[in-house]
Amino acid sequence: MGTPPPSDVYEPTDRTVPTRSAHRVSYDRELVHAILDEGRVCHLGFVRDGAPVVLPTLYARAGERLYVHGSTGSRPLRSAGRSDDGLPVCLTVTHVDGLVLARSAFHHSVNYRSVVVHGTARPVTDEQEKRAALDALVDHAVPGRAADCRPANAKELAATAVLRLDLAEVSAKVRTGGVADEPEDLALPHWAGVIPVRQRYGTPVAAADLAPGAALPAYLMAL
Amino acid sequence: MGTPPPSDVYEPTDRTVPTRSAHRVSYDRELVHAILDEGRVCHLGFVRDGAPVVLPTLYARAGERLYVHGSTGSRPLRSAGRSDDGLPVCLTVTHVDGLVLARSAFHHSVNYRSVVVHGTARPVTDEQEKRAALDALVDHAVPGRAADCRPANAKELAATAVLRLDLAEVSAKVRTGGVADEPEDLALPHWAGVIPVRQRYGTPVAAADLAPGAALPAYLMAL
Repeated sequence: MGTPPPSDVYEPTDRTVPTRSAHRVSYDRELVHAILDEGRVCHLGFVRDGAPVVLPTLYARAGERLYVHGSTGSRPLRSAGRSDDGLPVCLTVTHVDGLVLARSAFHHSVNYRSVVVHGTARPVTDEQEKRAALDALVDHAVPGRAADCRPANAKELAATAVLRLDLAEVSAKVRTGGVADEPEDLALPHWAGVIPVRQRYGTPVAAADLAPGAALPAYLMAL
Repeated sequence: MGTPPPSDVYEPTDRTVPTRSAHRVSYDRELVHAILDEGRVCHLGFVRDGAPVVLPTLYARAGERLYVHGSTGSRPLRSAGRSDDGLPVCLTVTHVDGLVLARSAFHHSVNYRSVVVHGTARPVTDEQEKRAALDALVDHAVPGRAADCRPANAKELAATAVLRLDLAEVSAKVRTGGVADEPEDLALPHWAGVIPVRQRYGTPVAAADLAPGAALPAYLMAL
């Protein structure tokens, strides 16, 4: 009969049930995947000497697994590699979609979509999984790119550490829509509304020393 | 003679000297300020029950102080308020400026600018400072806005907690420029170069129930 299909929501836990703005929280698996897949850089938090550290880093999703990578010399990757227990992390991805300007300072807000993943990151030691994770990391930045570059050689593979974080303790938080002013403020003369914010790609800038005939590939024209 | 002017660099510490990519790190005060001032949302890390938590949140800079705010009921703000020692945090701001597509998977990279601030966040209890911090938070999102909205009333002020984090243990990290491929890969047929990434504002969307005569202010036309 095989593995049952995953539930369409992540199970809430103590850590993923918020103390406020509960109406903005979602455990919907498709929404979580969509927010993760649209992001480029995550913020990875871990604890070092009892204090929090938050570093921006590339990541990729493959099904219900997230991967981050880095030099085998970097601090989080060394920490995770040293311990059989893995490294407790919190991985957060955020999109800012708009600035919400209310008539009152208090109701100023931001439209955003974010995902917070709690869990334990563990080094990927299986070479097949590591290669697949590195492909996923390249394809996460630009879909289609992994098949159009030289794969890592043995030396590069050895110099790269990959951590895996399973999607289990996960929540999304979303604010959309317009201004939520107090009724008594509606007559105030201040402009109110939303300033959309978008991330855009510019025109690709080719390296000066491209090989003859190395044209801009179709997957980049579509960006 | 007054206070001496601040040094033009932040003093490196154990936590702000990286284990790798040292050439990308800077302690330059002006660069740090510029990266912080351009950001909209930071990622604030703290430790709860021994595990890391990373949440996106608005912030503002006023000189050598950063402010974040939230409901008095939110977890980090309650944690900071409970303890006289404050809350150890790591506050990170990141701009993605470009995707760097190399001929080899290994040399794929991202052009970015980030600032990482380590320190202890403490609740702002002085009402004057709290009001100034809230103005700074609104003006950080849209310069000029704080003077063009209704300030917080006593009830709103009481419901808002503000944390202060001094800029002392700070570093910036920047990658700019083009592709850094291995010499032996330059003849490969793959396109290589940089895809610029930019955050853009869209056309402001006015609330449907604006007061008569509430025109789009000049500080929004300039965005």
